Amino acid sequence: MEQEHVVGVDIGGQTAKCGIVNARGEVLAQTILVSNTFSDAQSFVDALASTLKLLISDAGFEGQIRGIGVGAPNGNFYTGEIKDAPNLPWARSKNIPFAKMLSEAMGGLPVALTNDANAAAVGEMTYGAARGLKDFIMITLGTGVGSGIVIGGNVLYGHDGFAGELGHTIAIRGGRTCGCGRQGCLEAYCSAIGVARTAVEWLEQHPDESSLLRLRENVTSKDVYEAAKAGDKAAKEIFDYTGSILGRSFADFIAFSAPEAIVLFGGLARAKEFLYEPIVRSMNESVLPIWKDKVKVLFSSLSESDAAILGASALAWNL
Amino acid sequence: MEQEHVVGVDIGGQTAKCGIVNARGEVLAQTILVSNTFSDAQSFVDALASTLKLLISDAGFEGQIRGIGVGAPNGNFYTGEIKDAPNLPWARSKNIPFAKMLSEAMGGLPVALTNDANAAAVGEMTYGAARGLKDFIMITLGTGVGSGIVIGGNVLYGHDGFAGELGHTIAIRGGRTCGCGRQGCLEAYCSAIGVARTAVEWLEQHPDESSLLRLRENVTSKDVYEAAKAGDKAAKEIFDYTGSILGRSFADFIAFSAPEAIVLFGGLARAKEFLYEPIVRSMNESVLPIWKDKVKVLFSSLSESDAAILGASALAWNL
Repeated sequence: MEQEHVVGVDIGGQTAKCGIVNARGEVLAQTILVSNTFSDAQSFVDALASTLKLLISDAGFEGQIRGIGVGAPNGNFYTGEIKDAPNLPWARSKNIPFAKMLSEAMGGLPVALTNDANAAAVGEMTYGAARGLKDFIMITLGTGVGSGIVIGGNVLYGHDGFAGELGHTIAIRGGRTCGCGRQGCLEAYCSAIGVARTAVEWLEQHPDESSLLRLRENVTSKDVYEAAKAGDKAAKEIFDYTGSILGRSFADFIAFSAPEAIVLFGGLARAKEFLYEPIVRSMNESVLPIWKDKVKVLFSSLSESDAAILGASALAWNL
Repeated sequence: MEQEHVVGVDIGGQTAKCGIVNARGEVLAQTILVSNTFSDAQSFVDALASTLKLLISDAGFEGQIRGIGVGAPNGNFYTGEIKDAPNLPWARSKNIPFAKMLSEAMGGLPVALTNDANAAAVGEMTYGAARGLKDFIMITLGTGVGSGIVIGGNVLYGHDGFAGELGHTIAIRGGRTCGCGRQGCLEAYCSAIGVARTAVEWLEQHPDESSLLRLRENVTSKDVYEAAKAGDKAAKEIFDYTGSILGRSFADFIAFSAPEAIVLFGGLARAKEFLYEPIVRSMNESVLPIWKDKVKVLFSSLSESDAAILGASALAWNL
């Protein structure tokens, strides 16, 4: 039974979610470390190592951990570094040799690192909606828009380890300013923040139309989802717009790697009932005829609380 | 010495270029078959087989040919079929099992088929500017815009064998109608035909400015190139515009596969002196900061008459 388990760590702007996972993809124990209070990398790594050691010993898995898989923004699989992650105060404008630091703090346990969207793709392929698929594109719709591209069963890392930044392909030339400083990125329209921006624009452009969203002071994507559930016309139009932009971009992604499916994951993907139809319609209207009605659009089947941990942990099986 | 040679066939709308190639990438003998007079696939295959047999026997290589590599529009590496190639009268709106048919007509010699841009990528990697590169994108600037994507030393074929149609990603949403029936494709701006269309637009939009191009009745991309060589301001602006559109699209391609280089090939790539600077400038202005000034733009180093044959022939070494 020794070394039959792996640890998954999903590092986000607010928290690091940590869990112990078995070979069947069950999260046996988990915990959360608040991550936005650390300003230097070493103190975050030390706190994370303490948290993981406690989790492992409390759950009775000492000596049974094969390795640790970490998903983090701007994580580089080749180098094990987190490179200039604007949402992590301790990794802003810096290169952090995170895999090496965590391995040392964990007494030499091997650590694999990749970006959070690639981790999600591995998780989805190992345990989720993409099981059995060898060529697919994972799109994560969260605070930002991330992507993990799988080709022939392997994550595409590219020459430098940073391949798959599809949230920063241009959806609308000269469009909205994105968090990256450029204009018109897919992320500026189809992330949670992008949906909220669309809502604000919709309300401004339709001053005479009523909407539940007018009752909110700072509209969030969650408000838009809840309003759509309640039948709000504006909220549905906002998801239509979001879906149609996603579908158009997917048509370009298909021309690149000819995937069997595009898999959606993340908080916004919960709005499947409002996004699926406009995405599929717009994608099939926009794509080259050879791929019309050929590429599946799937939504993650992993339970949301486990998915991030599972995705990261799946990396560790190859250590 | 037996089977130390391969045959390369590059099928275009007008001609099929055929050659015998040795392991050092030297074209030892070549010939051209006019291809646009055939209306059914079997008669074209029969004529091609006769041409190849004659070429092989005339050059004294009977019994020394390992296999045949074919590059053709809409050629599918997985299935060996040419699928609905609008520029080939004998393959229009049809699926032609070309590799099988040619192999049979050649007495069982193995035949590998792929699309012309993938063949060019293999050729460039085996003999040309991409030697030693494992992650690059080949862009062919000819009558159309094609692409061959190489990842980890292998051509990306995707789930169905048709990956790498980057000429049909959208450069300008709602822009010019493309030959594929959609709007705004990169090909509608940056192919030879696209450059000629830009020239016509430029002349219309600048009625008071003089240009050598006004002396032409039907401006071609070759006229634009020659005018630019002669110092014509309009012609240079047309290449600036073409290069800046290519550069913006390259920025999106880089976000997909993070290549080490983008390699340009084809008739228009001869205009390197006018295209290089605007491409590189626009690409670096448009790309995510992590790739700024990192991705090389290379121009094919293969002599144009040999390149198409070499590219196709390179496929046959793995048969």
